[in-house]
Amino acid sequence: MPTFPQSFPMNGGDGPHSYIHNSSYQKVAIDGAKEKTSEAILKNLDLELLNRNSDENILRIADFGCSIGPNTFEVVQNIIDTVKQKNLKENNAYIGAPLEFQVCFNDQPNNDFNTLFRTQPISSKQAYLSVGVPGSFHGRVLPKNSLHIGHITYALHWLSTVPQHVCDKKSPALNKSYIQCNNLVEEVTEAYRVQFKKDMGDFLGARAEELVSGGLMILSGQCLPDGVPKALTWQGVVIDMIGDCLMDMAKQGITTKEKIELFSLPIYIPHISEFKAEIERNENFSIETMEKISHPMDYKPLTNDFITSMFRAILNTIIEEHFGDGVVNELFDRFAKKLNKYPIDFKRCKKYVNYFIVLKRK
Amino acid sequence: MPTFPQSFPMNGGDGPHSYIHNSSYQKVAIDGAKEKTSEAILKNLDLELLNRNSDENILRIADFGCSIGPNTFEVVQNIIDTVKQKNLKENNAYIGAPLEFQVCFNDQPNNDFNTLFRTQPISSKQAYLSVGVPGSFHGRVLPKNSLHIGHITYALHWLSTVPQHVCDKKSPALNKSYIQCNNLVEEVTEAYRVQFKKDMGDFLGARAEELVSGGLMILSGQCLPDGVPKALTWQGVVIDMIGDCLMDMAKQGITTKEKIELFSLPIYIPHISEFKAEIERNENFSIETMEKISHPMDYKPLTNDFITSMFRAILNTIIEEHFGDGVVNELFDRFAKKLNKYPIDFKRCKKYVNYFIVLKRK
Repeated sequence: MPTFPQSFPMNGGDGPHSYIHNSSYQKVAIDGAKEKTSEAILKNLDLELLNRNSDENILRIADFGCSIGPNTFEVVQNIIDTVKQKNLKENNAYIGAPLEFQVCFNDQPNNDFNTLFRTQPISSKQAYLSVGVPGSFHGRVLPKNSLHIGHITYALHWLSTVPQHVCDKKSPALNKSYIQCNNLVEEVTEAYRVQFKKDMGDFLGARAEELVSGGLMILSGQCLPDGVPKALTWQGVVIDMIGDCLMDMAKQGITTKEKIELFSLPIYIPHISEFKAEIERNENFSIETMEKISHPMDYKPLTNDFITSMFRAILNTIIEEHFGDGVVNELFDRFAKKLNKYPIDFKRCKKYVNYFIVLKRK
Repeated sequence: MPTFPQSFPMNGGDGPHSYIHNSSYQKVAIDGAKEKTSEAILKNLDLELLNRNSDENILRIADFGCSIGPNTFEVVQNIIDTVKQKNLKENNAYIGAPLEFQVCFNDQPNNDFNTLFRTQPISSKQAYLSVGVPGSFHGRVLPKNSLHIGHITYALHWLSTVPQHVCDKKSPALNKSYIQCNNLVEEVTEAYRVQFKKDMGDFLGARAEELVSGGLMILSGQCLPDGVPKALTWQGVVIDMIGDCLMDMAKQGITTKEKIELFSLPIYIPHISEFKAEIERNENFSIETMEKISHPMDYKPLTNDFITSMFRAILNTIIEEHFGDGVVNELFDRFAKKLNKYPIDFKRCKKYVNYFIVLKRK
């Protein structure tokens, strides 16, 4: 079987370490954006655009980087409910036959689509037609002019690849001491920034081709406040601590220092002004909404168990891929202990900025 | 996780008993139909129908009951190559932008889509956009008026459900002595026939809604010659022999007679005239081609190992589901031995009729 380099889905299945059972942090964020999403659709979606094609009477929705639920099912159900409500309210004369919905669940080809399909609520199966769309959202995955509402939440921080130089032993951008971009080494940050800009351009370019004119792209996720390095956020502290645990394991010969030097996460949390600039740079969309929203969990400290489970569900696959079988259990056991010894000081940590953006295809 | 009653996909993964490694009988049939498929597309597909919708320039192809490859990848590649060839030859003035292809791989939600996506040849990923479409092909799985070429091969013999009466202890149609419809008990055959007619109607009705006017539906598969009971074909003999092995196991207490009485495969091989009648009954399609083709393997006896592996890949899931874990290994060990003792007399067995049909949506 071919492998998919640089593609590390959330932990599959529905076991104790699965993303299904460890995505409540993301869920809270999605709940927070739910009402905003409804408002955006009610305000910005022009149902007449459906009438362009007289043969089809379909409204197509895509959730990019959907992972394996249950969050994605709630997101799309909310979108569909809102469109129906709008359609009813406007008593849309342009639409004759009843509106049909097709939902495109997109994620990498090695996402656990089996679990996604098998855990889909029965009610949703009656409400819309589903397809699984395997492929990176940094490229085209849907036909041109076929999509009406695109959605992406807490997924755009995944880069299409680890920036080349951060794993190059001869480069000044080698990410020697850390397993993430924590903004403490300028050369590393710069390498990540270059990749991020390219990926954002590719993402928006692909969506511009897929969306019909008038179609909406709804984005939510997280940025760093300007001037704040990731190392000062609790998420940054957590990943640096996981890196420290790997170093401890290297000292005991369970893994090697060299392996750690060559490992760096393909994740980049941009600063808010940087992110805005990339959104504004794309000329295919008008910006209907761009605002900061609060993440309800930002104001209460998380328990150590919650943090451990959450990061394990996210990082399990990618760590296993690089360090081999058997390392993950040991690593997260050590991490749990270290976290108990040095708990996160949430009051001192800087907070991410949560954004909510609505773009309209010109 | 919800279960999917009456949905028993081919054996997943890529292990020794997987459908991937045990579908060469089906492959030979598909190879046989390859040229016919190309001819049918060259002759019957009207590329102008693509121009109906000026925004999209997409040709959508669906393989219904696609299972997990490699056969399905070859089928769709052949269709795409043919459409491209036709497009080039006709130098189609109606199509401005380059033609895009989207392939809809359809099968039950518990089909192994993960393996399907992960084993897709890289070349095909560049040639077309892919989606996995989970759902029974007896119902709607795609939007109305969205499909240009539908394809189904060696899958229509799967019914949507086991006919109710054949597992009802109080019914005269209880399939007491056999695990299949082998046409030896008229009440059983009649129950299957009723279900088959309903399913064929549902299948063609759903496709009629999904296909655009002028769209093609290409079907291949197997029927019984009129007047021949399935019990006299080698495939019928094989499944009856598997049933005998189950009975042997019941005698030794490994399973129970009652469990076997309540088990009957949701498979029905119609007689050719019966099948033709169902095709002709649907008024949404014109019949462009309806002919018998030969299956190259019909003229040479198959080895016992080949037969065992082939039927195990097909029946593994459904038998495990009904009889529980651990029965399948034992059953196919016994079957292999019995087959060696009583090899199939291919010369005496009746042969299936292989059909190739092209329908055009009116």
